[in-house]
Formats: sequence, structure tokens, C-alpha cells
Amino acid sequence: MIDLHLIGIGTGNPDHLTAQAVAAMNRADLILLPRKGQAKSDLIDLRREICAQVLTGPTRIVEFDLPVRGNGATYLDDVNAWHDAIADAWRVQIAEHLPGGGKLALLVWGDPSLYDSTLRIADRLRSAGVEIAVRVVPGITSIQALTAAHAMPLNPLAGPVTITTGRLLRAHGWPAGADTIVVMLDSGCAFEGLQPQGITIWWGAYLGMAHEALEQGPLAQAGPRIALRRAELRARHGWIMDVYLMRRELADGT
Amino acid sequence: MIDLHLIGIGTGNPDHLTAQAVAAMNRADLILLPRKGQAKSDLIDLRREICAQVLTGPTRIVEFDLPVRGNGATYLDDVNAWHDAIADAWRVQIAEHLPGGGKLALLVWGDPSLYDSTLRIADRLRSAGVEIAVRVVPGITSIQALTAAHAMPLNPLAGPVTITTGRLLRAHGWPAGADTIVVMLDSGCAFEGLQPQGITIWWGAYLGMAHEALEQGPLAQAGPRIALRRAELRARHGWIMDVYLMRRELADGT
Repeated sequence: MIDLHLIGIGTGNPDHLTAQAVAAMNRADLILLPRKGQAKSDLIDLRREICAQVLTGPTRIVEFDLPVRGNGATYLDDVNAWHDAIADAWRVQIAEHLPGGGKLALLVWGDPSLYDSTLRIADRLRSAGVEIAVRVVPGITSIQALTAAHAMPLNPLAGPVTITTGRLLRAHGWPAGADTIVVMLDSGCAFEGLQPQGITIWWGAYLGMAHEALEQGPLAQAGPRIALRRAELRARHGWIMDVYLMRRELADGT
Repeated sequence: MIDLHLIGIGTGNPDHLTAQAVAAMNRADLILLPRKGQAKSDLIDLRREICAQVLTGPTRIVEFDLPVRGNGATYLDDVNAWHDAIADAWRVQIAEHLPGGGKLALLVWGDPSLYDSTLRIADRLRSAGVEIAVRVVPGITSIQALTAAHAMPLNPLAGPVTITTGRLLRAHGWPAGADTIVVMLDSGCAFEGLQPQGITIWWGAYLGMAHEALEQGPLAQAGPRIALRRAELRARHGWIMDVYLMRRELADGT
């Protein structure tokens, strides 16, 4: 029996860790850390650093190479095949390092509920016959790190918010019925496809980290500035993770 | 000059506190704790308990009576008048307890960005001429506590999520363009106004606390069960805070 803890660790600032996350890490027999290749070595370095800071007992740490997502016919097929491959990789590590069962922990960027695949990968292991109980420890998301950095509310007073992806924004435009949207998983400036009039953007990259970058303003002016800065930062660091919030004002000023 | 820290403390489980929140609490000269009347005394008790657990230095704690929201012509007018009254109450406390300025902290349920008024109240103080710098420390929201308790993802794979309120759901029905919605600030079972076919609900109350309550299932069956349980729990505890996620499946099964 595998007792799997999916632990949200926030967005790279070790101070985002909750007391619950620290306790769950220390209770684990094994923590698996995924290696994502040289370009993203910052990401595993941060996880190593977090482990070094908070582990006080005999928890073992094992690193493994995360499979790479293919680039096939459709995005969803690629993602599903990739999740299958990650589930296989977990199974190999579990068989080798926890053959008799035990407490396994995975450190999840942000929160395991939000645009993260670990819950779906755990389902695959269960479907494949691995006896597994899943517990989730929530963590600070990049959306929260963004609104905190800008000291701003997510929702308008008593109003709704839509969280979406760069891919959906590019394919379908501004979501119906929404005045405030958050865009995640944008591989590159999907806001450029919008008519910028009346839209304000609040953007952040590497949120919570030492090289956090912020921009905000009317989309017509801030958009090109963000596109330029994003390209520069990506070139400098070899990778980028960013998120942004946009508000649209109606023509009558409400 | 007032250096105001709005500190997200999670949903009532002291283990939701981040290291950043603990540090910000200990750096404060003064923490203001709002009293919300006898019926909600659990809420200030939890804040008192959190302070007792984490404060190690000379931070002062002052309690004050939070003004009560009126019940006037329109909801938004009531909320705005209420926020004005809270800003006045903060100003009185600041004048009395930090006359020469200093570091003031407020402990915010969940995260200061999400359906919370403290950022807007701080804006009122600034508009009224109080010199104030605002910093936000993110905290675990009830949405994250809900998805963690049900060990489920917030978003469908690569799909969007709309966060809305009970009031909006009651007034406008299921939000346009959304298949997954989260409903917050529902004063009582707004889901009862929906046609339940094809909708699944995941509900939680007192999330993170000792008496956390969870329900889930097809809305047609789970809805009445939740309504009954909610009424019982509210009668027993004198107050209730709950949140729920609903997914709608299209008729073709996607």
C-alpha cells in the first residue's frame, strides 16, 4: 500500500511552505524529485534546497528523469501520453525504492489542484492496480503570488473571476461573460491576440523567487513591454513561468 | 507611516500558516483582531489561538469590534457603507495604538486577494490621507482546502474554471461558457435554483477545522443532503462557512 502525499510547495519561495507541508515532508519515507533537463535545472535546485531546509529525519530523497512531452497530432493526446509515461516512471521508482509500500511524497509547484497533473497520474497508477491512497496538502499558487506581489484583489467587488489558459485564450478569445480573467500555462503572450482597448493587465514571472519580475498597466502599452521583457528573461534564465490577470472595463465605464 | 501587512492565515487550521505568514506576524508591532459578535466567536478564538502558537516576541494584540453590515437598499451600497465603517474603526485603533506609525498586521481568513475586503478598506484609509504601505502575504484559500479535502483537481484537463458567488449564481444561473464553477459567499444553497441533470457537486464546510464537513455526488441526490446537513450544522455551531465546486457534463458525455 502506497500512502501518497501530493504536497503543494508554493512558487519557489521556501517561505511559502505551510507547517502542514513541512510535517508531511518529514513524515514521508521517500520523496521523489523529478529532473526536467538542464534548461530547467533551477526547478529541481529549488526543490533540493527546500528539502535541505526542512527535512530533519530519515526521509530519503530520490531523483528521477521526468519523461518529456511529445509533440504529436493533438495537444490533449500528447498530454495524455505524457501522463501515461510519467505514471510508468513513478511505478518504476516505487517498485525500486518502496517495494513493501510506505509513505511517498511528491513536491508540487503551486497547489496540486491547479493546472497540475499529479492527481491524474495517481489515478493512472490506481487504474493499473497499484494500491494507493492519495492525500493533498494545499500550497500557495502562482495566482496568489501574483495578486500578493501587486497587492491587489483577484475578484472585483462581489464579482466573478475566470481562470483559463493561454491556449484557450488564443483559440477562443476573451471568455464569454467574464470581466476578470487569469491566464496560466501561456507558452507566449496569448494576450497579443486581443483588442487591447479597455483592458488592464497585471503580469508576473518567477513569482516568489529572487528574480521575480512584475509589470502592469493598460494592455495597449504594457503588452508590448511584457512581450519584450519576457523574451529577454527567458533567454537569460533558459526558462520562464509567468501568469497574468486582466480586467476589462465596459465602454460605459463600469 | 503605517506599514500594513495583510496576512492570509488559511481556513482555520493553524498548520495552513506559511513560514512567510509567521515571520510577518512576528515582525508586526501590532496585530488587530476583529470581534464579530458572539455567534461567530469561533472565528476570533481561532485567531487568538494562532497568535498564541506562533508569536515569540513583543508584538501587541488588540481586539476591536467589527462594525456590522447594514441591510439597506442594495447589496453593493450596504457593502460599501460597511467597508467605510470598518475603515473608520481601523483608523481609531491606529490613532490609539500606533500614533507614531509602525508595523500593523491583520490576519485574513484564506487569502487577502479572494472575496476579502481588507485591500479595499486599506485603499479607503489611503484616500482619507493615512500614509500607508500595503503588503500582502498569501494564504491557503477555502477553494484549495476544498479540493485538497476531496483530493481532486480544480480545473478539468487544460480547461477553464469560473469562481463566482452564491448571489450571482442565484441572480444569473449557471455562468455562460463555464463547465466547472466554484461558488463562494453563498448564504444558503444557491445550487437549488439549478436544473441538476448532469451536474456533480463537491461541497465542504468549516474546511481545515476539526469539524470539517464534506459531501459530494450528483447534484440531484447530493443537493438535498447538503441543504439538510448545512442547516443542522449552522444550528449547532451558530455560523457556517462553506464553498462548493460543480462540474457540468455536456449531453454528449464530454
